[in-house]
Amino acid sequence: MIEKVLVANRGEIAVRIIRACKEMGIATVAVYSTADEEALHVQLADEAVCIGSPLPKNSYLNIENIISAAVLTGCDALHPGFGFLSENAKFAEICEKCGITFIGPTGEMIRLMGDKAKAREMMIAAGVPVVPGSEGKIDDLEEAMCLADRIGYPVILKAAAGGGGRGMRIVWKKEEFEKAFLSASSEAENAFGDGSMYLEKYIQNPRHIEFQILSDAYGNVVHLGERDCSLQRRHQKVMEEAPSPFLNNDMRKRMGEIAVTAAKAVNYQNAGTIEFIVDASGEFYFIEMNTRIQVEHPITEIVTGIDLIKAQIKIAAKEPLAVKQKDIHIKGHAIECRINAENPLLNFKPCAGTIEELYLPGGRGVRIESALYESYKVPPTYDSMLAKVITFGDTREEAIAIMKRALGEIVIEGIETNVFFQYQLLNEAAFVEGKFDTSFIERNLETILGGVVDEA
Amino acid sequence: MIEKVLVANRGEIAVRIIRACKEMGIATVAVYSTADEEALHVQLADEAVCIGSPLPKNSYLNIENIISAAVLTGCDALHPGFGFLSENAKFAEICEKCGITFIGPTGEMIRLMGDKAKAREMMIAAGVPVVPGSEGKIDDLEEAMCLADRIGYPVILKAAAGGGGRGMRIVWKKEEFEKAFLSASSEAENAFGDGSMYLEKYIQNPRHIEFQILSDAYGNVVHLGERDCSLQRRHQKVMEEAPSPFLNNDMRKRMGEIAVTAAKAVNYQNAGTIEFIVDASGEFYFIEMNTRIQVEHPITEIVTGIDLIKAQIKIAAKEPLAVKQKDIHIKGHAIECRINAENPLLNFKPCAGTIEELYLPGGRGVRIESALYESYKVPPTYDSMLAKVITFGDTREEAIAIMKRALGEIVIEGIETNVFFQYQLLNEAAFVEGKFDTSFIERNLETILGGVVDEA
Repeated sequence: MIEKVLVANRGEIAVRIIRACKEMGIATVAVYSTADEEALHVQLADEAVCIGSPLPKNSYLNIENIISAAVLTGCDALHPGFGFLSENAKFAEICEKCGITFIGPTGEMIRLMGDKAKAREMMIAAGVPVVPGSEGKIDDLEEAMCLADRIGYPVILKAAAGGGGRGMRIVWKKEEFEKAFLSASSEAENAFGDGSMYLEKYIQNPRHIEFQILSDAYGNVVHLGERDCSLQRRHQKVMEEAPSPFLNNDMRKRMGEIAVTAAKAVNYQNAGTIEFIVDASGEFYFIEMNTRIQVEHPITEIVTGIDLIKAQIKIAAKEPLAVKQKDIHIKGHAIECRINAENPLLNFKPCAGTIEELYLPGGRGVRIESALYESYKVPPTYDSMLAKVITFGDTREEAIAIMKRALGEIVIEGIETNVFFQYQLLNEAAFVEGKFDTSFIERNLETILGGVVDEA
Repeated sequence: MIEKVLVANRGEIAVRIIRACKEMGIATVAVYSTADEEALHVQLADEAVCIGSPLPKNSYLNIENIISAAVLTGCDALHPGFGFLSENAKFAEICEKCGITFIGPTGEMIRLMGDKAKAREMMIAAGVPVVPGSEGKIDDLEEAMCLADRIGYPVILKAAAGGGGRGMRIVWKKEEFEKAFLSASSEAENAFGDGSMYLEKYIQNPRHIEFQILSDAYGNVVHLGERDCSLQRRHQKVMEEAPSPFLNNDMRKRMGEIAVTAAKAVNYQNAGTIEFIVDASGEFYFIEMNTRIQVEHPITEIVTGIDLIKAQIKIAAKEPLAVKQKDIHIKGHAIECRINAENPLLNFKPCAGTIEELYLPGGRGVRIESALYESYKVPPTYDSMLAKVITFGDTREEAIAIMKRALGEIVIEGIETNVFFQYQLLNEAAFVEGKFDTSFIERNLETILGGVVDEA
């Protein structure tokens, strides 16, 4: 059994992990940068070790200092949280070499899933649907047109050698293909000295739907249903919910089975997430696997009743999974709003400062994950996420109603936050109807912000 | 449908009711005494009306002022909470006469269940077990001895005319009866001028186990399982849990059925609680029915998934119950600790003061019901309960572990509280084993407090 865990993270996820450990009777060691001396995770852990100066590379990304802290305090395990070193294969391997159980998958698995091309290959081999496209570079127009026909329009052309939108074209129908291919190829040739192209099906305004999976050391794999994370801004998730208002039970079942297949195909161990994009017709495509706990894990915990952090620790301790797929039932509805220190009216500019007044809501149907307290100084150095407000009810409607009353109660003075932005988002008719996709926020930013201005 | 509710209470229960109304789209009016101008319930409600000076009789018990506030603000319903006017039959009747729906049972029902002798009679008629005893006064020794034989020892003799322990005797066996009866009767004669006696079975160190019921206007009655409220101090509940670690499924089923029978027998409407005492052998006896929502209602909400305040409002709006008995399943385990402004080391002396620092825990498995905020001034005039910390887990063990970590995180500076006392109670071996009764705390007070002193 695991007896002492080093929590290699900060903020609310460090607090979350420390709490789970305490509830399991496991001792905890926090690590902190000099910017985080007063942080809540430092106060709540049984021990705390300073690992360097504020810049992440000097502290939370400093493998040597973190491993030293774990060894010096006699930790037998380490939880990486998310971000920072959580998907660093080398770090996971060093932990294991030092006799410290890494609470997560093996370094090999992290490396494999971190290589998007290799992950795609493995998924194709396992029969998991991926976005259809060319297997490699295409230089030839005829060949490209044939493939586009096979895939079906619209398709997207990308410069094999480049990025930043140069040499990129969305092609809506066959008649436009030749012209687009030739101009894109020549643009790529000019920009990168290489005119070869990739070709992929273009998924218009997809939803982002991901499945949580748990796999133990004995080949048992279960999925815990999906999370709909389509509400994003610049590829950052803003609000998540479980279950997805888009999926019907048939799709849910099929995608869940595919997620389990995907995890089994790579012999995955511990908690992970299979991310899909889903087009309007319900076709879904694997995009990547996240080999760590995710920010939005609480909504899955609520609708399944399973503690994912405790499950991670038990799996790392080589306990077999306590549940079988047939025991997992999705009950009720949960929503998470990420409360960020940012100003939505100044292009979501992140900010730092002192929390001068704080009221976080409670009551039925509300769960708060946060490392805030009154008088806490939010350092400017790290991620802007301050807290997560998670609400749950029997129905989506109730979960939304509870979120609105909870956001309405929040007081965070001394720093700008996106609370009003989130509140406005909840009032958008399309959101209420469950009709949104990954570009919904960007497409409707002015409307959503307009409401904020009116209310302010 | 109900559109605007006056909340005739203060503190955490007023906040609880306001939140439920908001989530249902119902407007709220708070009332407050001049001591509560800055109170959270006043801040959270849509409107607020001052109803008088701090003393309860001038404000929260002032029927005229409360009814005026409801009429002036156009409320179509009123929620009384618990305490104050919640079990005042006249108040319920005046509300109805003024066209304001009283969210609770009828005045007649409150009156009936408030008369303990009449309630006992009705329960006997319905076949609900009550503590066996004489139906009225007994003057005659022979008659008393016959009854004691029938009931079985131990029995308790009480002066029919008196109280305060005078003329009271516990009789453990038949041989002691005559002497006890004669001396008690003569003591009563001397003290009250009346030597007649009541005789009852003496229940030694019982558990207090109560069943939550819901009844609608159409004769549908369900029970929502039990709460074990045996941890008391001077007849005040200290910590409650659901389900009871004492009941097996057979007892649970029988007691639940009896609770439903009891509610049906009196044609009860709205939320209510059937309180039983249970002896060590598992025999249970009705003691009274509470005709209001109770402090400890959240633990039932958690293990059943049913929002009791919303259910009360729907029943008052004449909606039929949304659930049938067969749909109600008890899942997991919930514990509630009442956090009081009192000093356990000074005989639990209540205190008032300003909350100078406040941290209330969050995270998985924690629900906070409170009206506290940092800088809030706790007035000396009202009940000492500041907050309720409710935790829940898959098992009793997990709920206890979460409660310990939650209480460990609490910071309430500026005022004495019983947090450490509650924490120590959680560590008592008998509590951990689920072996306690209504006098457990009093019997073990020194041990529990001793721990506190050692830790301090």
